[in-house]
Amino acid sequence: MFEEEAAPRRPGLRRTTRLEAFSDGVFAIAITLLVLDLAVPTTQNSVRHLLEAIGDEWPGYLGYIVSFATIGALWLGHNAMTDYLDRADTTLLWLNLLLLLFVSLLPFPTRLVSEFVTTTDRAERVAVTFYGLTLLIAAALLSVLWRYALHARLIRPDADDDEITLLTSRLTPGLAGYAVLILVGLFVPVAAVIGYLAIAVFFLIPVHIRKRDHVRPPA
Amino acid sequence: MFEEEAAPRRPGLRRTTRLEAFSDGVFAIAITLLVLDLAVPTTQNSVRHLLEAIGDEWPGYLGYIVSFATIGALWLGHNAMTDYLDRADTTLLWLNLLLLLFVSLLPFPTRLVSEFVTTTDRAERVAVTFYGLTLLIAAALLSVLWRYALHARLIRPDADDDEITLLTSRLTPGLAGYAVLILVGLFVPVAAVIGYLAIAVFFLIPVHIRKRDHVRPPA
Amino acid sequence: MFEEEAAPRRPGLRRTTRLEAFSDGVFAIAITLLVLDLAVPTTQNSVRHLLEAIGDEWPGYLGYIVSFATIGALWLGHNAMTDYLDRADTTLLWLNLLLLLFVSLLPFPTRLVSEFVTTTDRAERVAVTFYGLTLLIAAALLSVLWRYALHARLIRPDADDDEITLLTSRLTPGLAGYAVLILVGLFVPVAAVIGYLAIAVFFLIPVHIRKRDHVRPPA
Amino acid sequence: MFEEEAAPRRPGLRRTTRLEAFSDGVFAIAITLLVLDLAVPTTQNSVRHLLEAIGDEWPGYLGYIVSFATIGALWLGHNAMTDYLDRADTTLLWLNLLLLLFVSLLPFPTRLVSEFVTTTDRAERVAVTFYGLTLLIAAALLSVLWRYALHARLIRPDADDDEITLLTSRLTPGLAGYAVLILVGLFVPVAAVIGYLAIAVFFLIPVHIRKRDHVRPPA
Repeated sequence: MFEEEAAPRRPGLRRTTRLEAFSDGVFAIAITLLVLDLAVPTTQNSVRHLLEAIGDEWPGYLGYIVSFATIGALWLGHNAMTDYLDRADTTLLWLNLLLLLFVSLLPFPTRLVSEFVTTTDRAERVAVTFYGLTLLIAAALLSVLWRYALHARLIRPDADDDEITLLTSRLTPGLAGYAVLILVGLFVPVAAVIGYLAIAVFFLIPVHIRKRDHVRPPA
Repeated sequence: MFEEEAAPRRPGLRRTTRLEAFSDGVFAIAITLLVLDLAVPTTQNSVRHLLEAIGDEWPGYLGYIVSFATIGALWLGHNAMTDYLDRADTTLLWLNLLLLLFVSLLPFPTRLVSEFVTTTDRAERVAVTFYGLTLLIAAALLSVLWRYALHARLIRPDADDDEITLLTSRLTPGLAGYAVLILVGLFVPVAAVIGYLAIAVFFLIPVHIRKRDHVRPPA
Repeated sequence: MFEEEAAPRRPGLRRTTRLEAFSDGVFAIAITLLVLDLAVPTTQNSVRHLLEAIGDEWPGYLGYIVSFATIGALWLGHNAMTDYLDRADTTLLWLNLLLLLFVSLLPFPTRLVSEFVTTTDRAERVAVTFYGLTLLIAAALLSVLWRYALHARLIRPDADDDEITLLTSRLTPGLAGYAVLILVGLFVPVAAVIGYLAIAVFFLIPVHIRKRDHVRPPA
Repeated sequence: MFEEEAAPRRPGLRRTTRLEAFSDGVFAIAITLLVLDLAVPTTQNSVRHLLEAIGDEWPGYLGYIVSFATIGALWLGHNAMTDYLDRADTTLLWLNLLLLLFVSLLPFPTRLVSEFVTTTDRAERVAVTFYGLTLLIAAALLSVLWRYALHARLIRPDADDDEITLLTSRLTPGLAGYAVLILVGLFVPVAAVIGYLAIAVFFLIPVHIRKRDHVRPPA
């Protein structure tokens, strides 16, 4: 505790509080801005028309849910990492900004996918590929961030080694999954989008299972 | 205090600070984004016209106030819960993300209601039902979050049992109220919307009354 | 310090951390959303036209600056208050939500003023009056919030009495100023808008002067 | 630590937590709002057309990246400063609001540049000059903020003098760079925009190099 307080006074190292607050802000805003792209259907005033019109907007809702789940999963991963973080150096802050660049960019390819996923031509494949690349880069940067923190010894000295190994290994399958799904998206775009949702949920679930094994009653 | 500091180092459990910061961010953004949907009337330049045009926008203002009060009430409930929360596990973080999904979605059905509540046909009923379902699900998830925290023993060991029982029981009437109002909304949509406002205020008031009974002078 | 940590465990009283975080979020978002209403001029591609078009947008820039200064001043006042706040009860949280309702509403009358302040007819007076009323209510609620905190004894026991008296008295002139300017705005709308800017700056300056008198070197 | 807790109780001085939280909020929102201005191309449904249309939007992407990097660099600088900050007085809060005014304004000139950088006439020079002036003023205010904090002795008593001198001197070259690039932009607008990106990255890199020299293993 005193060690934690003393940290910012050591030269070249920063407290992690503002890194966390700024990141939480960007994650929270990016995840909430997604709703601005849900279009209100412009219909004639009849139940059937409004229901149909809402139904026609399904790509928008799908994109909303996939992006929400992905930003949520990235936030959970970011949260898990910073929990082990003792201090931050400038490279870490810089890598974190790069990650946030792609997190805050995500509403844009989401809009592209929502717009083009129902088109019959190949434009949807461009949109879905662009979307997949953004997800892949964001997940890769999260992994790089963590590996850098390990490399630069910015981790709390009292962190559990097994947990750190597990967290490290957990980040890899998602990357492979994104790479495969980008290829799938060239042939079956909608399948890729649903796959991205699965990865976001997969990101969440196994961390949970792992954690439950370790839970001990509060001392 | 030292116990609180030590918590994040226990495996599989997280500090609640980032859960709170991220949730505060999403609640704050969702509640503030509502203003973007208040349309500036496009009128001829006369007092009468501008006043009339502002008057014509009343469904927008009603939707704004109901959604603001509801997000505010959900935030108060969330705030009350996390005050008793000692630690967070991944399931709790996941449930919290699900709650935030519906909180951040709320501006969308608000727009639907503002758009359709004045139409003479049945489209308004679809909009109001959709709105009510979103509110019901959000309130239900808040209740689930709290029950899970109790079940998983994530509550501060020193929390007052009576307070916990009271907080638990307080969450139920709102859910019943939403269910009833969704039915009402099929017949008298505007009445349902005003009812939703009443629930949001009801969510706030009784917690207040309860608390005032317990207030003791600071030691 | 230990007293501060212990506070949330006393029944019916909350830590002020989430009150502050949520309020900071709403203030920050409302102040930043203002930029979305600065219109990009749609001009032919010539320097003269772009400069002229930017010049024509001056009501938008004026509204931006007045609203930015006002939200900033309200935030400074809110910040000053919560610094003396030891705990929060539900009434305070409720009053705070009401204040935030008007803070987050402010971008809307700002848009109205920007749209109508240059019209020759009386529509601008409606817009400016609506704007002034929003400012007056927000400032009044800030004052109510503070008086309630004093009344309910939610202030830190070690707070300086002179400071509290001074902060209380400082809040009144702004209210009178808004009331006068709303009347002025019925005759000279632009003068009222500039007056609102003056109040926002006045809100800031005297608190500063007061504080400088008291500054002592850190122990 | 106790000194830090005691600080807000000294008259006229504030904790820096809310200054940081509010600033983090504004930085995070301004940086995330940039994505709203990335236009979804409206194209016929063909791969070539979508790729071409995305290609045509390059000024939007360039503006996005330059503004993201600049806000990120300003945040890093702000973060570095507040790390040395012991307390805040009202002048500092006021200067900070002025800085945030220009940070939150940045999405507006970004939109201007994205709109006009490809026009053949001189309108792009107006847009790029306006953009450069906003960047220059924001960087200058960051420098003023820091110098004021030094002047008013708001720095932690235990801060390292060499670090403070270094941080002070680091802020000047960026200002000179912006001044030069504003002139360059009158002749080659795109070169100026790329130069602004270089300054943002330059802002980041040297702080990093400096810090690496000083890093010592955690005690």
